[in-house]
Amino acid sequence: MRILFIGDVYGKLGRQMIDEHLARLKKHYHPTLTIINAENAAHGKGITEKIYKQLMEQGADVITMGNHTWDNREIFEFIDRANKLVRPANFPEDTPGVGFRIVQINQWKVGIVNLQGRVFLPPIDDPFRKAESIIKEIRNETPIIFVDFHAETTSEKLALGWHLDGKVSAVVGTHTHVQTADERIFPNGTAYLTDVGMTGPYDGIIGVQRDTVIRRFLTQMPARFESETGAAQLSAVVIDIDESTGKAKKIERCLINPDHPFLK
Amino acid sequence: MRILFIGDVYGKLGRQMIDEHLARLKKHYHPTLTIINAENAAHGKGITEKIYKQLMEQGADVITMGNHTWDNREIFEFIDRANKLVRPANFPEDTPGVGFRIVQINQWKVGIVNLQGRVFLPPIDDPFRKAESIIKEIRNETPIIFVDFHAETTSEKLALGWHLDGKVSAVVGTHTHVQTADERIFPNGTAYLTDVGMTGPYDGIIGVQRDTVIRRFLTQMPARFESETGAAQLSAVVIDIDESTGKAKKIERCLINPDHPFLK
Amino acid sequence: MRILFIGDVYGKLGRQMIDEHLARLKKHYHPTLTIINAENAAHGKGITEKIYKQLMEQGADVITMGNHTWDNREIFEFIDRANKLVRPANFPEDTPGVGFRIVQINQWKVGIVNLQGRVFLPPIDDPFRKAESIIKEIRNETPIIFVDFHAETTSEKLALGWHLDGKVSAVVGTHTHVQTADERIFPNGTAYLTDVGMTGPYDGIIGVQRDTVIRRFLTQMPARFESETGAAQLSAVVIDIDESTGKAKKIERCLINPDHPFLK
Amino acid sequence: MRILFIGDVYGKLGRQMIDEHLARLKKHYHPTLTIINAENAAHGKGITEKIYKQLMEQGADVITMGNHTWDNREIFEFIDRANKLVRPANFPEDTPGVGFRIVQINQWKVGIVNLQGRVFLPPIDDPFRKAESIIKEIRNETPIIFVDFHAETTSEKLALGWHLDGKVSAVVGTHTHVQTADERIFPNGTAYLTDVGMTGPYDGIIGVQRDTVIRRFLTQMPARFESETGAAQLSAVVIDIDESTGKAKKIERCLINPDHPFLK
Ligand SMILES: [Fe+2]
Ligand SMILES: [Fe+2]
Ligand SMILES: [Fe+2]
Ligand SMILES: [Fe+2]
Ligand SMILES: [Fe+2]
Ligand SMILES: [Fe+2]
Ligand SMILES: [Fe+2]
Ligand SMILES: [Fe+2]
Repeated sequence: MRILFIGDVYGKLGRQMIDEHLARLKKHYHPTLTIINAENAAHGKGITEKIYKQLMEQGADVITMGNHTWDNREIFEFIDRANKLVRPANFPEDTPGVGFRIVQINQWKVGIVNLQGRVFLPPIDDPFRKAESIIKEIRNETPIIFVDFHAETTSEKLALGWHLDGKVSAVVGTHTHVQTADERIFPNGTAYLTDVGMTGPYDGIIGVQRDTVIRRFLTQMPARFESETGAAQLSAVVIDIDESTGKAKKIERCLINPDHPFLK
Repeated sequence: MRILFIGDVYGKLGRQMIDEHLARLKKHYHPTLTIINAENAAHGKGITEKIYKQLMEQGADVITMGNHTWDNREIFEFIDRANKLVRPANFPEDTPGVGFRIVQINQWKVGIVNLQGRVFLPPIDDPFRKAESIIKEIRNETPIIFVDFHAETTSEKLALGWHLDGKVSAVVGTHTHVQTADERIFPNGTAYLTDVGMTGPYDGIIGVQRDTVIRRFLTQMPARFESETGAAQLSAVVIDIDESTGKAKKIERCLINPDHPFLK
Repeated sequence: MRILFIGDVYGKLGRQMIDEHLARLKKHYHPTLTIINAENAAHGKGITEKIYKQLMEQGADVITMGNHTWDNREIFEFIDRANKLVRPANFPEDTPGVGFRIVQINQWKVGIVNLQGRVFLPPIDDPFRKAESIIKEIRNETPIIFVDFHAETTSEKLALGWHLDGKVSAVVGTHTHVQTADERIFPNGTAYLTDVGMTGPYDGIIGVQRDTVIRRFLTQMPARFESETGAAQLSAVVIDIDESTGKAKKIERCLINPDHPFLK
Repeated sequence: MRILFIGDVYGKLGRQMIDEHLARLKKHYHPTLTIINAENAAHGKGITEKIYKQLMEQGADVITMGNHTWDNREIFEFIDRANKLVRPANFPEDTPGVGFRIVQINQWKVGIVNLQGRVFLPPIDDPFRKAESIIKEIRNETPIIFVDFHAETTSEKLALGWHLDGKVSAVVGTHTHVQTADERIFPNGTAYLTDVGMTGPYDGIIGVQRDTVIRRFLTQMPARFESETGAAQLSAVVIDIDESTGKAKKIERCLINPDHPFLK
């Protein structure tokens, strides 16, 4: 089976890229399952129910989130009925929503786990131990497990990836909004990529208007962040998994932007 | 002209990769100038004079550094006579060493600038203003300017890259030890890559023994970091520059590791 | 001469404490000069022109600020005509406002300097070097120099205090909103206090509604911070200075709150 | 009953202050129970078995720790037999040692809890929830509960203090090494002090040689931290507790240093 995962959809430009390219990507890659990280889908800040439904209609099977999960307060109303949405599993006890889901696709069950790092990010529960306990639970049902690890540093991401090698099908990172080039399959069969990158403005700074960000670095004053406009990009990764063992067979990055147009 | 830049050489394995591959890389790419970031060359921590000399003999023209500059205290003795070494320019006033150099290569002068970010790193002088003042000075002599921006976050790196677009030939990032896949030439002619990645252990966690790092994440106890052994990688980038304008014409990433063997 | 310095005035309760107690404090202590840190005067976030004028009318001679300087955007309009307001001097070049002032009080000139720390706070210019250059400038006119060092950690505050010992009359800290008990006069004559504490809600958490802050620690979700209501406190320090040498002769803390009512 | 708590004992000077003053403090205050935070007792870095035993012989009943618990590796050998030592309870699962103890003093049982904050400190388990579960357990045996909350920021300390108001006898902070002046009894009977301060060098910077710390701020280079020599201080707090309810009746700070000599 094949999983298509699309990195942090950011604002209107990000949603337009999904609208424009997801069908074509599916035609090209024939994924069994499509997962989209949408923590920045609503103007860079969280997600609304309308956007959640749009993404599902456009072809997402599961939505993952990250540190921006609660930025748009609408989520508190709809998260309980958003039955394909996963927020980081290591958020504190009693947090609304769920941290992993097992979905049925054709004859297979697939576990999708969302976790968030703690280095240079808010102090939440230990992602390493939380991963272990969730994986144990999922593996009772299926060996096919996909982990979106939303984290800042390469060391925390690599550490979780190596730690879960052989226990999950894939660990891919999100959050930095820049795709890394280190895709590989670890010795025990886990596909790994430090960061998938983002889907949204191509000429902004991690999605934000670049002039505003530069001014903020120069002045150290608070600034209102708007999405950058103009050109757009889509960042994704495609992972092939052996359904019986859960081990990854192949991992391939995908970038669509003015410098890398999508090959028809 | 063409610049070959090799990312953070880490410990013995990193130095072996230089020994094994630099001559072949030069034969393949024919760079006019070779720059190596060596902040981790001595067991992951700084550089010694012996290693500095070895790297120069092996074919480096200029050495850049980063936050690990002072880790090996030998540097205080030899930095004044290491006339091809550049440490971050925005270190505090009166810091030993220099933050940029102008070297003569064939008929061209090339300015090499090293800067360090401040997000999630020690508070030093403003890299944006320091870049501006240095670039102004270098441009009196040459428009060919290469910037190694040693920084943690994608936002600070992208911000400096965009801010310097049209003022320098290239801004490439170092420090995260994972190569990013976002190489491009900005609209005004500056080549950009968020991180070149590292040269050293392939199966460690940013160079360090992976078991030690994982244990530290699990226990939050202090741990002595040793270099990982086994397989190795080399990370680099090649940039073509128009000598008369200083504008970049082409940027190409290069990765050598067991999954991407060097093509002979 | 005697300086009365009042720590971070926070919101309405803080302003009420000034209204209620400043006249009485002056009657009791007879300060030559009254300085108020007002970075949180407007609902905890910055200052407005109306509040600035009120504080001056209520008896402040000089207003100092901190990391919340720009929170209320009205300041951009009036900072240029607020000729008794001082914001941290080590904000980036070209920042509106000034970082120190020399005021004439009776026959004496007094230099008031505001600086901000960099540990666990945004990366700005070096407060140590900035302090040195400003002090050099002020000492051409007067040896009486008061420094409000707005910083998070005890180590950075103690370090600046000791570093300036003998060069200024007093270094007092602000920002943590809790008064410390370590007032002393360093060997070379500089009065020192790590933090003066805040003036505002007594039953909040650094001024903020305590239930909101506790919920945020428990949930790690974003929360809108409102000022706590109910009881109030005032935190201050009184410093006696030899006018001819600028050396401190005495430093005394002052706390007014329900547990320490002001003695009439 | 009365608890005497002495803040972070730092190095040789700190241990000498215990040697010199603890007997006299006991004679003066007649504490029922004496607790000492000793995370910096061995040259500023952790504790050895010899020092642990010395402190117990000198009159400590219980030793608490903090973020420096593991700095001296000897602790791994003796922590299992150090049956009066408590390290932060919210360290990760399977950490050696214990996070709270119930000791019998005269006819009373007293629970002593050590917790560590997470703001600007390593990401460990949630101190708020861990406090709740431990307190629930202890209250089955006794309502007399003392909490040493080792944390950096005033907000996290105040938040835990208010959160536990009425559930424990006292929450006192450690770690910043500077005593705060905000001792009070919260409305539901919990005694509170943001930081008790340290016991050790009086003229250092949080214990360390001040010249080294200042140089590090000026150069941002790594430096070897040695303890400051010369004058010394002792920082403590005395809390009176109603044995039947566990509620605090009185809290009093205590400082001994050249500026505040101990009154015989
Ligand atoms: Fe994101
Ligand atoms: Fe994120
Ligand atoms: Fe490095
Ligand atoms: Fe680095
Ligand atoms: Fe404040
Ligand atoms: Fe502040
Ligand atoms: Fe300590
Ligand atoms: Fe500590």
